[in-house]
Amino acid sequence: MTFHIDGTDKTVIAGGVRIGGGNVPVRIAGPCAVESRKQIMEIAEIVKKAGAEFLRGGVFKPRTSPYDFQGLGWEGLEYLKEAGEKTGLPIVTEVLDPYHIDRLVGQIDLIQIGSRNMHNYALLKAVGETGKPVMLKRGMSATIREWILAAEYLAASGNGEIILCERGIRTFSDYTRNTLDLSAVPIMKKETGLPVVVDPSHGTGLRELVVPMSKAALACGADGIMVEVHNNPEKALSDGPQSLMETGYRKLVSDTEMFMVKKKV
Amino acid sequence: MTFHIDGTDKTVIAGGVRIGGGNVPVRIAGPCAVESRKQIMEIAEIVKKAGAEFLRGGVFKPRTSPYDFQGLGWEGLEYLKEAGEKTGLPIVTEVLDPYHIDRLVGQIDLIQIGSRNMHNYALLKAVGETGKPVMLKRGMSATIREWILAAEYLAASGNGEIILCERGIRTFSDYTRNTLDLSAVPIMKKETGLPVVVDPSHGTGLRELVVPMSKAALACGADGIMVEVHNNPEKALSDGPQSLMETGYRKLVSDTEMFMVKKKV
Amino acid sequence: MTFHIDGTDKTVIAGGVRIGGGNVPVRIAGPCAVESRKQIMEIAEIVKKAGAEFLRGGVFKPRTSPYDFQGLGWEGLEYLKEAGEKTGLPIVTEVLDPYHIDRLVGQIDLIQIGSRNMHNYALLKAVGETGKPVMLKRGMSATIREWILAAEYLAASGNGEIILCERGIRTFSDYTRNTLDLSAVPIMKKETGLPVVVDPSHGTGLRELVVPMSKAALACGADGIMVEVHNNPEKALSDGPQSLMETGYRKLVSDTEMFMVKKKV
Amino acid sequence: MTFHIDGTDKTVIAGGVRIGGGNVPVRIAGPCAVESRKQIMEIAEIVKKAGAEFLRGGVFKPRTSPYDFQGLGWEGLEYLKEAGEKTGLPIVTEVLDPYHIDRLVGQIDLIQIGSRNMHNYALLKAVGETGKPVMLKRGMSATIREWILAAEYLAASGNGEIILCERGIRTFSDYTRNTLDLSAVPIMKKETGLPVVVDPSHGTGLRELVVPMSKAALACGADGIMVEVHNNPEKALSDGPQSLMETGYRKLVSDTEMFMVKKKV
Repeated sequence: MTFHIDGTDKTVIAGGVRIGGGNVPVRIAGPCAVESRKQIMEIAEIVKKAGAEFLRGGVFKPRTSPYDFQGLGWEGLEYLKEAGEKTGLPIVTEVLDPYHIDRLVGQIDLIQIGSRNMHNYALLKAVGETGKPVMLKRGMSATIREWILAAEYLAASGNGEIILCERGIRTFSDYTRNTLDLSAVPIMKKETGLPVVVDPSHGTGLRELVVPMSKAALACGADGIMVEVHNNPEKALSDGPQSLMETGYRKLVSDTEMFMVKKKV
Repeated sequence: MTFHIDGTDKTVIAGGVRIGGGNVPVRIAGPCAVESRKQIMEIAEIVKKAGAEFLRGGVFKPRTSPYDFQGLGWEGLEYLKEAGEKTGLPIVTEVLDPYHIDRLVGQIDLIQIGSRNMHNYALLKAVGETGKPVMLKRGMSATIREWILAAEYLAASGNGEIILCERGIRTFSDYTRNTLDLSAVPIMKKETGLPVVVDPSHGTGLRELVVPMSKAALACGADGIMVEVHNNPEKALSDGPQSLMETGYRKLVSDTEMFMVKKKV
Repeated sequence: MTFHIDGTDKTVIAGGVRIGGGNVPVRIAGPCAVESRKQIMEIAEIVKKAGAEFLRGGVFKPRTSPYDFQGLGWEGLEYLKEAGEKTGLPIVTEVLDPYHIDRLVGQIDLIQIGSRNMHNYALLKAVGETGKPVMLKRGMSATIREWILAAEYLAASGNGEIILCERGIRTFSDYTRNTLDLSAVPIMKKETGLPVVVDPSHGTGLRELVVPMSKAALACGADGIMVEVHNNPEKALSDGPQSLMETGYRKLVSDTEMFMVKKKV
Repeated sequence: MTFHIDGTDKTVIAGGVRIGGGNVPVRIAGPCAVESRKQIMEIAEIVKKAGAEFLRGGVFKPRTSPYDFQGLGWEGLEYLKEAGEKTGLPIVTEVLDPYHIDRLVGQIDLIQIGSRNMHNYALLKAVGETGKPVMLKRGMSATIREWILAAEYLAASGNGEIILCERGIRTFSDYTRNTLDLSAVPIMKKETGLPVVVDPSHGTGLRELVVPMSKAALACGADGIMVEVHNNPEKALSDGPQSLMETGYRKLVSDTEMFMVKKKV
């Protein structure tokens, strides 16, 4: 079997921004969920001013409980798009449902497949067929091999524009929400050649760990950092405790500036 | 929030067979995947004769690699149905894709949601809307709470006909394919009241452990045992090493006979 | 390398009681820690009357915090011995410190090495040299291979009188204190031939799970069950929530009676 | 209860070198085990020349199998001391057995307690009584709280000269030997104030990951890096695959030079 993903160094271009392949690492930031027009517009301004290259925001949210806030859906997408256009930031959002792909794909710059769906092969195949740049998060207990093969599902369906995202794995450890496995950065770079982004917000679940873990991620070769930023974390409908406020995000940007350089590949 | 699933003891009826609620435990058996008409017909005869109440067989298979056998699809379903009709056994198969539900649901007796899709809320909602008896496998690293809430997704979408299936969790342990967590049987019985079936084939990955783990599962209250049986495990297209042969399955049935009694609830 | 432990079926005799080798499973019961003369005398009477074959009780306790009750030490041993003599039950207690071995070994019937010390090779070697029957608990994240090799440390030091004890492993699961890995029972029986005892008290941490997990353990071949029993769990200095009261222990004994038979080997 | 370890920033001085408290990170390097006089002398020269501040080398080795090389014992200590004196490097070695402490403690600069013994409270107490600078490795499945409390055992016995060492935890992940949990660096710094060293050699088990993980560790605040270096990894009696050769260690030193600065605390 010849794999599509063979370790060759790859640059993905999404929303006009180059990711991986030795390019300057990218910063993806925004709220866990789009909660209102006002909220996403404010946060978009914050992250744009601080120096982000992408705006993230969930519109369909995969929540553990059916009774938790499930996202604003298509209405949220309108707000996210408006915020992206206003700030000039390309937008990233997650897709949960194969039925949503056709409508979603033309409206966003980077499509995200979340941890809970890394093993959802029907979704992988459907997203693979779009050819749209896609960020594939690691499943919460996915081995390196399973993660590579999930990416291969996308590639085998015709989509090679893949970015990987390490977001912490499930272990016995109970201080953090997940255990951020940074060894996955150099491993996946070597095994796949694809860009690897790190999400220290989900990876730790604790705001105070986002800056040190971002630095660590970039130090070992990450091609980008995705973090949750909120204008009012205490009232956030999801993931408040792991979201940075404006000051925190500015500090993150300034503390990681030393890593914002082209890498030789 | 009032949960639909509240611990009240529940009997699910699928294909005319009563599961849970203190009824005699059920035996679900069959191959990992339907591989041919001949194969499923032979295996159906074997498990029927030995004493199974349900015939299982995958027609759409969620495989870690996109290059592994993905199941026979709708053709496989025809064979499975024929085998079910011939032997009089109700049939169980897994659904992976929301697009398949409508076509699948009327043709089978019990719909299975696999481990990889326990967190696939789009699929849970869609299956929930059918009202069809459904067996929800535990995600490979799902906590008890997450598993309960996944069931609640089904219930909240209108489907209370839920059977739970413990199939092993992912741990550091490397002797077995998964670590069968039998404490989940009494825990889920108490927390949900729903029938709980155990799958020692996936739970251990080793044929020789299927009989002892089946006995253990029934001893602590399982409402059923689902095992993989193959007529030629060495040539099986998937899960050969954990599949029982005819003799093995007969031994399982006879060794667990002492547990095949009504329980007081 | 020829291993001392080679899978040959083994009976260990401790305090005159035969364990393993197809003999009737044994019941080891008693408090987590000896807390007072009165406490251990009362509990010894309870478990003796109910049907236990061994009395357990910690005198040196390995506690996670240095500020938690560390056991009564040698004074506790005197009480334990007295309780054993009064009831005629052989006694089991844990050794933590190589310096204690000489003094301890002649006074007890079965020496226990706890989970925290399974990898403590200095202790294993020292206990190995005594030739005293020893119960080796599985380390909290020990693989099957590591556990076998820890037993081999004992055997290589001259002590083949080894009983293994599965007591739960550490996983992501947070409902129970540990995840009881019952597949270890048939696996260790086959790989080592040694008697395997199960400790559902530590294995689950929840009193209500002790009976179902004891039944499951015996159903899959355990040679014994070790459970914590306390006369006043709410005031217990350690492990109260997982300790059975007199009624609970009586129920355990009666619910597991069906498994109290000789097994063919 | 007032804890001895209360988060106050702490500098430990071992062999005249200051560790933690905002000082320049230290480099500890050397073979897994002292194998011969020649081997340790050569490696000592290599790591000294490259820029290490400490020489490590096991003389008593805690091996999973009793039949693997167990270290040269006291003879090995003589070689290690000689290598330390020749190069002027302070020496670090592990203690396994309370009986060895008295003889060992005056001859070395920093005493190590290994992962397998983090829960060995008899050893912790005995080492605590010496007052000798000690490096406490995290147990392979120790939670943050358990690790803190193990350090508290040392402190409560009178020894506050504690350095912590993150060396990877045991998870389902099978690509690496362990999962290096770098979030433990900022967490333990905050919770204890003690110096935190990272061991990427055991943390990953793969030579190629040692450099990127060292960079990541230092980027998130580690006070030191401990790595295995061997002059002939292919013939190493233990841990060959994770040991760096001379060139690799020189690269590590040069690639991490940017982090070799005083930190404000």
